[in-house]
Amino acid sequence: MSSTKALMARRHATLGPHSLTFYDEPLQLVSGVGVWLRGADGVDYLDAYNNVPHVGHCNPVVVQAIADQAARLNIHTRYLHETVVEYAEALLETFASPLDRVSLVNSGSEANELALRIARQHTGHTGVLVSDFSYHGNTTSLAVLTTALTVREPLGAHVRALRVPDLDNDPRPEGTVLAEALAQARAAVDSLVESGHGVSAFLFDPLFSTEGLPRVPAGYLEGVVELVRAAGGLVVADEVQSGFGRTGTRMWGHELFGLSPELVTLGKPMGNGHPLGAVVTTPELLDEFGAANLYFNTFAGNPVSAAAGLAVLREMDDLELQAGTLKVGDRARVLLEELATRHSFVTAVKGTGLFFGLEFTEAALTKRVVEDMRRRGVLISRVGRHDTVLKVRPPLVFGHDHLTLLADRLAASLDALEAA
Amino acid sequence: MSSTKALMARRHATLGPHSLTFYDEPLQLVSGVGVWLRGADGVDYLDAYNNVPHVGHCNPVVVQAIADQAARLNIHTRYLHETVVEYAEALLETFASPLDRVSLVNSGSEANELALRIARQHTGHTGVLVSDFSYHGNTTSLAVLTTALTVREPLGAHVRALRVPDLDNDPRPEGTVLAEALAQARAAVDSLVESGHGVSAFLFDPLFSTEGLPRVPAGYLEGVVELVRAAGGLVVADEVQSGFGRTGTRMWGHELFGLSPELVTLGKPMGNGHPLGAVVTTPELLDEFGAANLYFNTFAGNPVSAAAGLAVLREMDDLELQAGTLKVGDRARVLLEELATRHSFVTAVKGTGLFFGLEFTEAALTKRVVEDMRRRGVLISRVGRHDTVLKVRPPLVFGHDHLTLLADRLAASLDALEAA
Repeated sequence: MSSTKALMARRHATLGPHSLTFYDEPLQLVSGVGVWLRGADGVDYLDAYNNVPHVGHCNPVVVQAIADQAARLNIHTRYLHETVVEYAEALLETFASPLDRVSLVNSGSEANELALRIARQHTGHTGVLVSDFSYHGNTTSLAVLTTALTVREPLGAHVRALRVPDLDNDPRPEGTVLAEALAQARAAVDSLVESGHGVSAFLFDPLFSTEGLPRVPAGYLEGVVELVRAAGGLVVADEVQSGFGRTGTRMWGHELFGLSPELVTLGKPMGNGHPLGAVVTTPELLDEFGAANLYFNTFAGNPVSAAAGLAVLREMDDLELQAGTLKVGDRARVLLEELATRHSFVTAVKGTGLFFGLEFTEAALTKRVVEDMRRRGVLISRVGRHDTVLKVRPPLVFGHDHLTLLADRLAASLDALEAA
Repeated sequence: MSSTKALMARRHATLGPHSLTFYDEPLQLVSGVGVWLRGADGVDYLDAYNNVPHVGHCNPVVVQAIADQAARLNIHTRYLHETVVEYAEALLETFASPLDRVSLVNSGSEANELALRIARQHTGHTGVLVSDFSYHGNTTSLAVLTTALTVREPLGAHVRALRVPDLDNDPRPEGTVLAEALAQARAAVDSLVESGHGVSAFLFDPLFSTEGLPRVPAGYLEGVVELVRAAGGLVVADEVQSGFGRTGTRMWGHELFGLSPELVTLGKPMGNGHPLGAVVTTPELLDEFGAANLYFNTFAGNPVSAAAGLAVLREMDDLELQAGTLKVGDRARVLLEELATRHSFVTAVKGTGLFFGLEFTEAALTKRVVEDMRRRGVLISRVGRHDTVLKVRPPLVFGHDHLTLLADRLAASLDALEAA
């Protein structure tokens, strides 16, 4: 550990002490392959946490695509290049019409920035609805609507934050929970309209990942969307976490609810770690924005990023990762339900597909399990309003054997916690 | 050209018609090496325009660094990794103390966003001074201070735009020009203070690239900086275009003026095309920001981006590109002065190092030369308030032979224009 300590000191002296690392003792990594990460300590860790390496750490097809294109040409979109068009076509094929246009960017933050610019300009309104425990990026416009992380900017006067209902944590009948949540949304919309901000956008993650994967009442999202549209607002699905087949059943999280957002934002898994994001929208919205704004993004849409994105989509197809995710995710649910019955401190099984977790009675327990699992060679994390939900969100190449290993270690960890 | 036309149609149907391309007929590219770009038309174009491929298109050292690291590990900074620390150290070595901390991001837009967040929080003010023909990025906060490109957002009430003086376009004595420009800056600062916005930052490109490389009076920047600091504002040097040795004489543009900015933002050439940006600042400012905000950036600081950035710095050293830039830039100046004397429509020679141009009497002429040079196999562009300045800003591996070729073709193009 002494070399890790020395490296941490050098990191503090360059990136500063507030550039956070996971775990009580930072984990230094040296290599990765598939769902495995090798530590500087020589240990191979099962990665059950990271969603960015979507088709596996150092996926050879993606690595080759990046290496080949980087050696051939990397240029911006002011010149014409075939690969960016090819990628745009392949990506848009995964969306239902009228989501037929894409603007490529470099990150989820850039995607949400652009989506909100488009929404504000189109509606002539500034108001934004978000959930009251959410995060959509690190720019100023996104900081003023950040409710889940500490930011010094106060919540914007044009922002209203909704408490997303969670049937797992609410003993009342579903209809009562739904009615109350929709009444709150209606009040938020009314407040935005009355204050003169109006509603430009409802920006949400269809899985409510940061919120801790709440089990929302049937009809909740549809109801909020109806209120937002009635006020002239647009629907922006932030698929940075819920997209690219993560749920197993659908390519995009918003499809779980039969929603047709006007804007969809993409990030994290899109380039398997290569910086890549996008806004997918309708021809009308992109044309309107493009006619009124000279929007250029130097790095976005370069052929290397496009080649990385294209390789991710092809690997998803070739390895049938969405179908695999559904199967492994379903079995995960069964195994987690079993664990839940064995420990009274587990209050719920959360999530869908390869984004799941166990809710505990208190944050001290999730913290101990996350640290303990690291010692057992498995990387997971925790999430939610009170940090009470174990967060398991592996690369989609996570197979049955990996799940068995995860479940065994998690069972042992929970037993140890029970015995402690 | 028919395949190019078909590709443009496919591009319009995916990225939309407002995703701009250069030239009357878009130029489709297929590969690049050093200062050469091969078109789909089979022509090898001399690239005298692109600053992003700083150490040359498809620089083999950078390509290898990206390929190797992508095959080994790509992960975010919540884990500890040596390469990102190594890169941060190498980058910070090029800055004078107290610019001893760096926060890595994915683009120049993300860099300026973060710099302004830091400046606003530190000063408690919101006001920003920019030039009246400038561009610093594509987010909402940057759109409201964009003065050079069309954006639908009006200039922010907290923004004041300064007319940067240009001795090449002002016949009055330097002292008069300076006094007037500083009086305008003083009025802008006073106006921000009186309106309650205060001054958070003066955000500027030390070369004033977008403005058309004006020849500013001695003492201008120093004078504005003094006014800004007296009002409690911070100095933010946007080195996205002027940095990384581009001027030949200095690594960073702000060093040309002996300035010590509190914040420096980096982008374009940093990763030779790999999406990479940064904010360099003082330990005090980064600590203050980090203590009050949980700032995380998923892609930024990943080891592949860091390896790309490190390879760029090493290539700059190994190929002695800054020294080469100085020599080639000096000779370019001589050749351009010669051309200027031969044509009455050339009104000035602009720029420094490998960022130079000729100012013409009217935009119609620069447009004709840019298109004509493309037909002659050389890529340049134009810039400035009235698009009257030819923009020549090649990769830094641009040598004497390339310059000779450029100068010959440019001479022929200007002769043709004279004869037309």
